[in-house]
Amino acid sequence: MIERIRINTRSRVECHELTREVREKVKASGTTNGLCYLFVPHTTAAVTLNEHADPSVMKDISRQLGKLVPEHNDYSHAEGNADAHIKASLMGSSAVVFIEGGELVLGTWQGVFFCEFDGPRSRTVILKIAGDSA
Amino acid sequence: MIERIRINTRSRVECHELTREVREKVKASGTTNGLCYLFVPHTTAAVTLNEHADPSVMKDISRQLGKLVPEHNDYSHAEGNADAHIKASLMGSSAVVFIEGGELVLGTWQGVFFCEFDGPRSRTVILKIAGDSA
Amino acid sequence: MIERIRINTRSRVECHELTREVREKVKASGTTNGLCYLFVPHTTAAVTLNEHADPSVMKDISRQLGKLVPEHNDYSHAEGNADAHIKASLMGSSAVVFIEGGELVLGTWQGVFFCEFDGPRSRTVILKIAGDSA
Repeated sequence: MIERIRINTRSRVECHELTREVREKVKASGTTNGLCYLFVPHTTAAVTLNEHADPSVMKDISRQLGKLVPEHNDYSHAEGNADAHIKASLMGSSAVVFIEGGELVLGTWQGVFFCEFDGPRSRTVILKIAGDSA
Repeated sequence: MIERIRINTRSRVECHELTREVREKVKASGTTNGLCYLFVPHTTAAVTLNEHADPSVMKDISRQLGKLVPEHNDYSHAEGNADAHIKASLMGSSAVVFIEGGELVLGTWQGVFFCEFDGPRSRTVILKIAGDSA
Repeated sequence: MIERIRINTRSRVECHELTREVREKVKASGTTNGLCYLFVPHTTAAVTLNEHADPSVMKDISRQLGKLVPEHNDYSHAEGNADAHIKASLMGSSAVVFIEGGELVLGTWQGVFFCEFDGPRSRTVILKIAGDSA
């Protein structure tokens, strides 16, 4: 019931669209109606839903987060990635998408994005697909 | 199992309480114990839980978000609503409320709010009410 | 199916780790595979997942939130805790963790944290542990 999507990020900060991979996992599960949970088992990355049509939207999100939470600041955490931890909690470690008629219930412009805040790294997003009980 | 609540927002930025509508959908579903998921299929709006007793709380949230993410900035997204996309991801596209004894499990001061960041528009919040499996 | 964890916070702003308590509740439930939902029935507190190994990470998160949302500002809400309400919505009132083989599915560095923004107070986190339907 638990599926994994592997992602190799290439920059310190980037947003990586996962909509196609999530859709394929849901199709492969054979679930008609239910829920798809996405969970990020990392503390310097997140998952969010936002516009997939214009890639500049996710770039604006990353840039504004970088203004609100600068990489270099008077942080206590000594590993140099305190900003990434803070951004991860602001954006959130999980997301949920409904499944109806075997399809993800997403708005026209909505896509699922993995947000890397401390790359490049090998990352995993864990999915749990739960069909409605009869 | 999927229900929809329609909202017509009247301003560019506003918070619209949905607690009563959500409660009515849960009652109508006849679910005694379970979960109620709320999902916003838009990329410039969000859902959040916060205080319903004093409307100034949601106004303070909207205003502070407006300070953190100004409407006019050096955004790449050319449609003039990049700020609304950023706020949507900061606040989140989904929420969950428990159902116990046929009632929403909410704190005394908690209400469910739809957050419009790029109105006025016709909007939808999708609900999934899932009863506990026996 | 609904469990409660009681927390007595000691400062106005603090992060309180709950991983051990959540793990114990999951063990006690006897759930092999499923989901553990955490819900905060308060409007000036939140729940988040982040690093538990170095306590300075959660301190950095609290401090940066304090910079983004100052305690004293031109807020409308007259109770002096508008900042706490705003932080609560930025961080979120719920979290979900998967359960697999009777264990919480958490990354190596991940812990579950209750975030107090208007303490000291007596607080509750509500858990719902849902086993997969057969």
